Amino acid sequence: MDYEEKTLHKESIYNGKIIDVRVHEVQLPDGRTGKREVVNHPGAVAVIARTPSGKIILVRQYRKALEKELFEIPAGKLEPGEDPEMSAFRELEEETGYRAHGLKKTASFYTSPGFADEIIHLYEADRVTKGQTSTDEDEFVELVEVSLEEAQQFIREEKIHDAKTMYAVQHLMLSR
Amino acid sequence: MDYEEKTLHKESIYNGKIIDVRVHEVQLPDGRTGKREVVNHPGAVAVIARTPSGKIILVRQYRKALEKELFEIPAGKLEPGEDPEMSAFRELEEETGYRAHGLKKTASFYTSPGFADEIIHLYEADRVTKGQTSTDEDEFVELVEVSLEEAQQFIREEKIHDAKTMYAVQHLMLSR
Repeated sequence: MDYEEKTLHKESIYNGKIIDVRVHEVQLPDGRTGKREVVNHPGAVAVIARTPSGKIILVRQYRKALEKELFEIPAGKLEPGEDPEMSAFRELEEETGYRAHGLKKTASFYTSPGFADEIIHLYEADRVTKGQTSTDEDEFVELVEVSLEEAQQFIREEKIHDAKTMYAVQHLMLSR
Repeated sequence: MDYEEKTLHKESIYNGKIIDVRVHEVQLPDGRTGKREVVNHPGAVAVIARTPSGKIILVRQYRKALEKELFEIPAGKLEPGEDPEMSAFRELEEETGYRAHGLKKTASFYTSPGFADEIIHLYEADRVTKGQTSTDEDEFVELVEVSLEEAQQFIREEKIHDAKTMYAVQHLMLSR
């Protein structure tokens, strides 16, 4: 069966700095029409970065949408036309000051397919070394380095509480 | 250090059926102001449901935001004030026709903390039995039952390509 929902009419609600919002009037498979709210996002990269001693690099960051701080793996949004792997090298160094000497693609996933097109491209970098930090002008982060056991404890304490970082920790547990 | 970003002014951009969109003008930690785009979502539940023979239940669904179909674990959004566990029982039966006889909480995670407050509460149900399907009037889904090995193959083929389902598959691999 073909479930495609063709757009009959699209209303542009918002064009923002990070997201755009559209409401599509669609043709449903049964012939009726329906509305679909869609958030368009440029996509993002995230990096499972480990120091030579095997610690995982996390960034502590205030998340306005949640009105609280989370510890997450380094991540950032893709620039228009940017190659995800190049973006991963760039974001890791800008956000953490650590430099990757090679990246391995781990996975990619859509974060919220019910309403958003955001995709995260996840990479791994081992034995990262200190480079130069230069975060975005409106980005305030603090770095911590944790063992895999400490990361699991952070999950139990909900200090780590986002899908990409919890996926990354599971991935490291499976790779042990 | 305190990274809290207090809202100085909030603009309501959109009040939709599933999402609301707000732009907050915030006080940054360095004293300057910035803008934060926030998508408010009611939160969701998802269920790792397995049949008596151990197959994982997936729903095939067209995702307008991605303009393609994905295979995902059963999920649905929370009704206002609804208990997540009750919602998980309800969504599983409505969407798949399978009934859970007990639910175990697996995890919860924010899907896109950079711009949305959506949280997914993930549950597990073993030995689900056939009940009654009654999907939402604008929801068109098809069920498939797969082994864990088939689910891993679906990930390689990007038929499964969303964070919650890929997290669920890793969880089952770790639980083996």
